[in-house]
Amino acid sequence: MNNLRILASFAFAVSLWIASVTAWGQDPLPSWNDTASKKSVQAFVERVTRQDSPDFVPVERRIATFDNDGTLWSEQPYYFQLAFALDRIKAMAPDHPEWKNQQPFQGVLEGDLKAVMAGGEKALIEIIAATHSGMTADEFEQIVTQWIDTAKHPQTGKLYKQMVYQPMLELLDYLRANDFKTFIVSGGGIEFMRPWTLETYGIPREQVVGSSIKSRYEIRDGKPVLVRLPEVNFIDDKEGKPVGIHMHLGQRPIFAAGNSDGDWQMLQYTTIGHSPSFGLIVHHTDADREWAYDRQSHVGRLDQALDDAQQQGWTVVDMKRDWKMIYPSE
Amino acid sequence: MNNLRILASFAFAVSLWIASVTAWGQDPLPSWNDTASKKSVQAFVERVTRQDSPDFVPVERRIATFDNDGTLWSEQPYYFQLAFALDRIKAMAPDHPEWKNQQPFQGVLEGDLKAVMAGGEKALIEIIAATHSGMTADEFEQIVTQWIDTAKHPQTGKLYKQMVYQPMLELLDYLRANDFKTFIVSGGGIEFMRPWTLETYGIPREQVVGSSIKSRYEIRDGKPVLVRLPEVNFIDDKEGKPVGIHMHLGQRPIFAAGNSDGDWQMLQYTTIGHSPSFGLIVHHTDADREWAYDRQSHVGRLDQALDDAQQQGWTVVDMKRDWKMIYPSE
Repeated sequence: MNNLRILASFAFAVSLWIASVTAWGQDPLPSWNDTASKKSVQAFVERVTRQDSPDFVPVERRIATFDNDGTLWSEQPYYFQLAFALDRIKAMAPDHPEWKNQQPFQGVLEGDLKAVMAGGEKALIEIIAATHSGMTADEFEQIVTQWIDTAKHPQTGKLYKQMVYQPMLELLDYLRANDFKTFIVSGGGIEFMRPWTLETYGIPREQVVGSSIKSRYEIRDGKPVLVRLPEVNFIDDKEGKPVGIHMHLGQRPIFAAGNSDGDWQMLQYTTIGHSPSFGLIVHHTDADREWAYDRQSHVGRLDQALDDAQQQGWTVVDMKRDWKMIYPSE
Repeated sequence: MNNLRILASFAFAVSLWIASVTAWGQDPLPSWNDTASKKSVQAFVERVTRQDSPDFVPVERRIATFDNDGTLWSEQPYYFQLAFALDRIKAMAPDHPEWKNQQPFQGVLEGDLKAVMAGGEKALIEIIAATHSGMTADEFEQIVTQWIDTAKHPQTGKLYKQMVYQPMLELLDYLRANDFKTFIVSGGGIEFMRPWTLETYGIPREQVVGSSIKSRYEIRDGKPVLVRLPEVNFIDDKEGKPVGIHMHLGQRPIFAAGNSDGDWQMLQYTTIGHSPSFGLIVHHTDADREWAYDRQSHVGRLDQALDDAQQQGWTVVDMKRDWKMIYPSE
C-alpha cells in the first residue's frame, strides 16, 4: 500500500508539473492591453503567491471581493435589477388593475420614468416591495431565473447576462487559478444575484454578499418555506460593505475591486494599513464600446474614491485604454 | 504542447486511480460502531455520489450543515461560550470596581451562579454586552483566540477545544472527501467560532453561520475598523436557522445534523419534501463518557425534534451505542 501511495504522489506531482509547463507562456489576461493596470495586477498576484516571496499569503487568506454593478457587468442607463423590477410590474399588472391610476406603478406601465422618479426613494421602495416580496424564496428564484435567461438590454440588444466584462471574467479566473477565493460584494439584491452567479462568473451562491430583505420561516401546506417580507434587512453599500464582508466572510480581503463611491469603504477596509493588499477601480471611460461616466453620474457615481485612488495606490483601470474588448461576444 | 497536455491528463488520472486504490478498504468512520446509524450515513453518501445513482447530486448541491454546541463539541454544564463570557468578566473586573456590588457581575465574581441566573435573560444580555461588544472585531478575535488556546473545562480538565467529538470530526472529513461543502449553523456567536473552526473542524470562516451583534464601520486613528455594538443583529436559532442558512448559503442543504430542539427547524427545512436528504440527531446518552440528557435539560433540550425523528426518518445517533470514543485524545 505504501509504495502505491508514493507512486500516487509522484504521478500527481508529474501531472501538476506538466500542467504548469503547458500553462507557461499563455497569457491569463488576453483581453487586457499590456498597460500598467495589467502589469500591476500580475505583479501583485506573483508577490503574494510565490513561496519565496516576503509577502507570501497562505491560501486561506487569499480572499478577493468584487462589486457587481459597473464592475463585473454594465449598469447603464440604470441598474439592471431596476430593469427587472420594471419588467415585473408589467408582468404583474393584469392582477393589479388599480395600478393603472396609482403612482409609481402607473408611470412604469406608461413608460413614463420621469413620473416614477418624481416619487423619489419612496417610489423605488414601493416598486421593490411589490416585485421582490410576498412570495417564497423558491418562487422568487424561479422568477429571477426566467428573467435573466430571456431579458435583453434595450440599447445593445444583448441579454443582460451577456453584458459582463470579458476582462473581469479573465481576472476572476486568473485569481482562482492562483488559489484565491472570489466573492461578490454588491449593493444589489443578494437573492437577485445568486441564481446566476455560478454560471456567469464561476462564483457559487455562498460567495455572494448583497443587500437583502427579511424572510420568515414557516410551514405552508406541509412544506417548509421562507417567505419574503417587505422589510429591509441589510443595505450592502458604502459603509455597509465592510460590515457585509465581515458578516459573511469573517475576514478582511486582500484584493477588492469596485467602480463607484459605493465601493470606497470596501477599498479602504481592504487596503489601508494592511499589506500586501490590492485595490482596483474600473473607470468607465469608453463611450463608444460601453459608457463614459464618473463624477456627475446618477448611477455609479465615482468621485471621492477616484480622488483617493492615487494616495492609496489603487489601480484605476481605464476601460478604453486598458481593455481590448468589453463583452464576451464581440 | 498538446502531447504534454494528454500526458498530464493521463498522469493525473493514474494518480487518482492509485489514490482510490489506497483508500479502498479503509474505514472512513473508524470511531463509529458498526450499527444502523453508521450504515445509514454511508448508504446516503453512496446514494448521492455514485454517478449511476438515480439520486445522484451534483457537487455544487452537496451542502451539509452542522449545529455546533452539543453536535460537534460538548455543551455541559452550560454552553462553552458562557464559560468564555464568565472568564472575561473576571479578567475585566480590575477595570470595573463597580461590579463588586452590581448584579449580575457580582454573582459571577463570587462564583454565585444562582444569583446570576436569578437575573434571567436580562442578566445574560448584560454579561454578553459587557464581554462581547465595545471593542473592534480584530480585538475580539485576539481575545477569543487567547481564551480558546488556554481555557480548560473544570470537570474534564481538557481544553474546551479538545472536547470535540472524534466521530463527528470523521463524519466531516468523510463528507468533504465526497465533495460535500461543510458548514456550521449554530445558535452561538459567529465571531466566537470563526477564529478556531478551521483548525478544529476544517471549516473555514466563511462557512460558519451563527448569532451576531451589529457592528459599525469607522476610521479610527487613520485605520479602518469594525466596532462591535451592544445590539443584537441576528439570532441563529430555531426558526432563525433556516433564515440564517438562506442568508449565508443561499441554498437548501441536503444534509443537516443537530442535537436539540434548536435544530428542529433546520432539520425540517433540509429534509421535508426534499429528497434525497439526510437528517441526523446526536442523542446524548452516555453519562459515563460524556453527559446524558434530552427532554428535561435546560441546556440542549431535545424534545419535539426527538418526537419528530421517527416520522421524518431522521437518524438518531445514540452516543453510548454508536460511538467507540467521544473525544480525540482518549
